Amino acid sequence: MQTKQDIATTWFRSLRDQICSSYEALEPKRARFERTVWQKEDGRGGGEISLMKGEVFEKVGVNISTVHGEFSEKFRHEIPGAATNPRYWAAGISLVAHPRSPFVPAAHFNTRMIVIGDGARLWFGGGGDLNPMGHPVAKDTADFHAAFQQACDPFDAHFYPHFKAWCDEYFYIPHRQRARGEGGIFYDYLGLHSLGAETTAVDPGQFGKGGAGKEHTRAGMLVAADAALDWEGCFAFTQKVGEAFRDIYPALVARHLSESWTAEDETRLLKYRGQYAEYNLLYDRGTRFGLMTGGNPEAILMSLPPRAEWL
Amino acid sequence: MQTKQDIATTWFRSLRDQICSSYEALEPKRARFERTVWQKEDGRGGGEISLMKGEVFEKVGVNISTVHGEFSEKFRHEIPGAATNPRYWAAGISLVAHPRSPFVPAAHFNTRMIVIGDGARLWFGGGGDLNPMGHPVAKDTADFHAAFQQACDPFDAHFYPHFKAWCDEYFYIPHRQRARGEGGIFYDYLGLHSLGAETTAVDPGQFGKGGAGKEHTRAGMLVAADAALDWEGCFAFTQKVGEAFRDIYPALVARHLSESWTAEDETRLLKYRGQYAEYNLLYDRGTRFGLMTGGNPEAILMSLPPRAEWL
Repeated sequence: MQTKQDIATTWFRSLRDQICSSYEALEPKRARFERTVWQKEDGRGGGEISLMKGEVFEKVGVNISTVHGEFSEKFRHEIPGAATNPRYWAAGISLVAHPRSPFVPAAHFNTRMIVIGDGARLWFGGGGDLNPMGHPVAKDTADFHAAFQQACDPFDAHFYPHFKAWCDEYFYIPHRQRARGEGGIFYDYLGLHSLGAETTAVDPGQFGKGGAGKEHTRAGMLVAADAALDWEGCFAFTQKVGEAFRDIYPALVARHLSESWTAEDETRLLKYRGQYAEYNLLYDRGTRFGLMTGGNPEAILMSLPPRAEWL
Repeated sequence: MQTKQDIATTWFRSLRDQICSSYEALEPKRARFERTVWQKEDGRGGGEISLMKGEVFEKVGVNISTVHGEFSEKFRHEIPGAATNPRYWAAGISLVAHPRSPFVPAAHFNTRMIVIGDGARLWFGGGGDLNPMGHPVAKDTADFHAAFQQACDPFDAHFYPHFKAWCDEYFYIPHRQRARGEGGIFYDYLGLHSLGAETTAVDPGQFGKGGAGKEHTRAGMLVAADAALDWEGCFAFTQKVGEAFRDIYPALVARHLSESWTAEDETRLLKYRGQYAEYNLLYDRGTRFGLMTGGNPEAILMSLPPRAEWL
């Protein structure tokens, strides 16, 4: 019998394959993803990095990974359920696309399933956000958001506004006093209250403190919102989010392929990419968490832009 | 009468002027530093950014600043003496040089004087490290270290080995499992035990916890080593460190000015610069501390390389 872990892992891989094919189809000179398989040093799982350097996508990486282990003393108090039993299982897909053209927006997307303490806690998280590099286009932003709203609304009318606000809050660059991009959705702890063996003793105030800003507050709101979803519901939602991103982003890329750019546009692109790198290294929870817990730096830092400027 | 604060501030400015002049003298096309004066939003001090973009130095920044205020609740427990009285005064000079040639080493230097709680605690910190971008030269490294050793030895035979080891520990990039560069010296809390109104109640284990790795251990060793130095001694040492860097670094730059480079050397340079940026954004205590406490991002992020690659 397939476990929930198997089902989710198979889907992450399948989504990866669909996404990679559709991006390769946009490349005029037949650029292709190169795949690198890696294993955790302790042998507890690993992943696959798919990286393409093409004409349209100067650099696009799509990672899938399935890992397990035990959280260190330091982290287990920041993870719901891990203080009792620090074992974890996690699988997911993560994508960052840095197009060459200053007029093609960059984008980030990921979804993940997390199991803590041999099943005591289980949740999904993910989302996607659009990052035009200095040249936002209102219709791109509107269509990107509409795609996510269409994915969210059939599950819960509160999801899209909550997850949009959470995304805006999460992808804010405080020292630059600006958003990293045009937003999208971000969700976490989906299913935390409705799934898992221990469903009564979770205090949203107990976790999320290690993350950025007010996440635990929003997590609290989400926990209430997701109470109606069983595992199949949470997984179905995560699939819809993935499919929404899979379909809308290449459509936005295709809109701008015929636009030419100047050296000035290029400079603006490179400077925005510098701020994107600042965000990922200074604030992004996944990046810092991954590096501090001995994750694969090549996979984690795949998100960094191919070239950036701080001039 | 000049206060200690005045004396130190005047010296930081004077060192800045000397350094900028000597770097301008290396520029064949008469590039010059441009100066930007800034003030803290609360009006409590500010600084001057001196930035040059030239032929030899693709980007070199020299900041001086003199600021005061109160540490936030969050930070005051990480700063010796600040829990009792969170007022601080801080002045210093900070420099990062990113030469254009892959064969001219980059470098970082800073020194600072800190006063906590209206004089209850007072110390100096600083150091410098050499960062060849993929092309280290043994003689450059040896001469850079020798210059600092000459500055250190007349004060205390323990200083150079301690401060060299502290530098190696501090400028290590864990996720890359490599040093950021060829090292130099790094010191902090110099005078913490011998200066200030309250000299008895300092437990080195109480602070440094917010920093990288084992700094508080080393700080403990330093506190013992510096017990013989009064304020004049600590300041004289800091001056000698500044003069050592002022003299040795342009000499190293000058050695490599006639060397040409290939596209391959350039790529190696840009990739090393990427790792340099990773270090500064992920680990550097000064960068994170400055940004998290509302410092001037332009001054703090002056350290980032002009161009970098993650391809």
